[in-house]
Amino acid sequence: MSVLERLEEISGIGRDPVRGGYSRHLLEPAELALRDWFRRSARELELAVEVDGNGNLWAWWGDPGPGVIATGSHLDSVPGGGAYDGPLGVASSFEAVALLRAEGWRPARPIAICAFSEEEGSRFGMPCLGARLLAGEITPEAALARVDSGGVTLADAWRQAGMDVSRIGPDRDRVALLDTFVELHVEQGLDLEERGLPLAVASAIMAHGRWRLTISGEGNHAGTTPMPGRRDPVVAASAAALAVRDVALEHPTARGTVGRIAVTPNGTNVIASRVDAWLDIRAHSDAQVRAQLDSTVALIRKCVAAEGCVLDVREESFSPLVAFDQPLTERIAGVLGGAPSIATGAGHDAGVLSAYLPAAMIFVRNPTGVSHAPGETARDEDCEVGARGLAAVLRDLAGKPIP
Amino acid sequence: MSVLERLEEISGIGRDPVRGGYSRHLLEPAELALRDWFRRSARELELAVEVDGNGNLWAWWGDPGPGVIATGSHLDSVPGGGAYDGPLGVASSFEAVALLRAEGWRPARPIAICAFSEEEGSRFGMPCLGARLLAGEITPEAALARVDSGGVTLADAWRQAGMDVSRIGPDRDRVALLDTFVELHVEQGLDLEERGLPLAVASAIMAHGRWRLTISGEGNHAGTTPMPGRRDPVVAASAAALAVRDVALEHPTARGTVGRIAVTPNGTNVIASRVDAWLDIRAHSDAQVRAQLDSTVALIRKCVAAEGCVLDVREESFSPLVAFDQPLTERIAGVLGGAPSIATGAGHDAGVLSAYLPAAMIFVRNPTGVSHAPGETARDEDCEVGARGLAAVLRDLAGKPIP
Repeated sequence: MSVLERLEEISGIGRDPVRGGYSRHLLEPAELALRDWFRRSARELELAVEVDGNGNLWAWWGDPGPGVIATGSHLDSVPGGGAYDGPLGVASSFEAVALLRAEGWRPARPIAICAFSEEEGSRFGMPCLGARLLAGEITPEAALARVDSGGVTLADAWRQAGMDVSRIGPDRDRVALLDTFVELHVEQGLDLEERGLPLAVASAIMAHGRWRLTISGEGNHAGTTPMPGRRDPVVAASAAALAVRDVALEHPTARGTVGRIAVTPNGTNVIASRVDAWLDIRAHSDAQVRAQLDSTVALIRKCVAAEGCVLDVREESFSPLVAFDQPLTERIAGVLGGAPSIATGAGHDAGVLSAYLPAAMIFVRNPTGVSHAPGETARDEDCEVGARGLAAVLRDLAGKPIP
Repeated sequence: MSVLERLEEISGIGRDPVRGGYSRHLLEPAELALRDWFRRSARELELAVEVDGNGNLWAWWGDPGPGVIATGSHLDSVPGGGAYDGPLGVASSFEAVALLRAEGWRPARPIAICAFSEEEGSRFGMPCLGARLLAGEITPEAALARVDSGGVTLADAWRQAGMDVSRIGPDRDRVALLDTFVELHVEQGLDLEERGLPLAVASAIMAHGRWRLTISGEGNHAGTTPMPGRRDPVVAASAAALAVRDVALEHPTARGTVGRIAVTPNGTNVIASRVDAWLDIRAHSDAQVRAQLDSTVALIRKCVAAEGCVLDVREESFSPLVAFDQPLTERIAGVLGGAPSIATGAGHDAGVLSAYLPAAMIFVRNPTGVSHAPGETARDEDCEVGARGLAAVLRDLAGKPIP
């Protein structure tokens, strides 16, 4: 097979007819179908499959035990996401193992292919949910109480999928078995395209926080309510979204985005009573994210007060700056023939795990630079170069037993 | 019975647990339950019920024939609307007939109680859908092709409710039977509360248009995409919503509102690719609405172009200024003991019908002035005053046979 053929097997799963691209959300039918595909792919390579207590999938080459070299990524997507973000890493992992098996090579340590639950946070709002639960960064209680946009709790979603909610939570024994984690991922920018190279390694992940802004005003009739005296949360939220952009533009490398908005009640002839807007901030240090949040919220408070509305700000997640393990990253760059090292603004399971074990990432060139949208892409030949590169990295890392 | 008791019969139907208030949308379960209540209410008063080809309900006191005195309102609501907007007029009509029957009075002409389909336009985007179809202001083809937010066409909704799509369309014979239409409605402002009076008549309905603004940009990753060069439709739509407000504020009596927004794909960590925002403009002349639209769109075009996005503007509806029939309005004001006459910014079925026959409205005091929101209210005693007033109006209008 090839990475391309592996991705083709799932190309019909979870297509979004309205947004374009794919909508594959945790434990919804499309994501469950991808889990079946993971199991089939593992079975064809004679890898034993296991689901941990947090819904993360593990395919084992060799018996689970100390010194594991783990690779993989995630299967879920943002709403209307691309075909590569997540699945490319999983498909490349299977292809890398297939290539190594075809060579007759056998690992000196266990190799695991992982697919982590809800990396995008698109259903329950917490990015890297499965990896964070595994590491104990979120309590089971907090996770189980999370609610999706349809009012379904994570606990209910878990039960509906036939999974055991009592198993959710930290799994330190499992983390202790892991020696190294390497995640292959499509690049989410144009760096490699501009350099004319197929692969890079990641140096760092920007610090990243998500906040939910709730702006409450006074719902009323759009026709009968005079303009003066209105307390319209759409007006306040609009000023807030512009404030987010204006503050972010002041810092050359920072990012500030409002990409999700919910208007209540959302009727054409109704002045809204409430707007929820989600704020996403990234920068090159934790302190800068906090400073940018403070400046942004201070500006938003003024806009909201000017409209006679009320603001509530709640943190949904905060991911500190990740600096990937430098010796590991240099070793992988060497195996890949001197791949360049680039920083990214996107969060990843590898970033979460890097707090507990050496972790690294391999990026595959994306000719459009587009990410989290249907226009995301990767050239077929680059995907195969990525899988062969990942195979070489696994051969290197898992070639010798634990010293 | 009383109006209060009649409204209590439906107080549990269509409550919106998320928005508060009521969400009763055309041919959805709650609205179908209200249709059943209409039938029961008519049956208890021995009125024959008929559904016309456009889904409008008719309860007949006397055989249908020329010279009909019609009254009534609608049963549907905006999302998260109040308990009175629509149902108060229907419940008061039944109560008025009950009061007249209890007196032993008999009409000299047929009286009809109506409930028109989708007055609010909340499901299929066209306010006064049933009345407009009846009058022939929309073609059946245009109506049948309308799509709700879940992708269901009106044709499908019609069929799912077991109704005959081939009967949709103008019904000039029915309109020709109507002599007069009187709609009782909760006031959507504070005029009567400030005057200390329970009832008023309507002088006019402001001109009103609805437009859908579609702003297309470039979807991308919120973390990996630098701020300069973004083409973010949320930023453009936010500037647009502020432009709508700013232009409306320039005209003392005009209104401009964005109350409905749909972001695509609507993910926290995704720069949106598209925003749809609905624009509602009202003013005291058709020309002023058009002029306000032109100024607003010109300003929006600048904001959208500045963000590198593309704007599409589509008219969803335009309702010219309605000046209600003055002799009829004065006659009703006299029957009501000298009720004042007030203009309104809200559209109504009576406004649509006024182009074809003398039509009038009676407003019942609303102590909060709130409309299209759960805070809408009316005092119990005012509701009964309204029903007795409507009974007196029907006695006056239907007391003598056609000359």
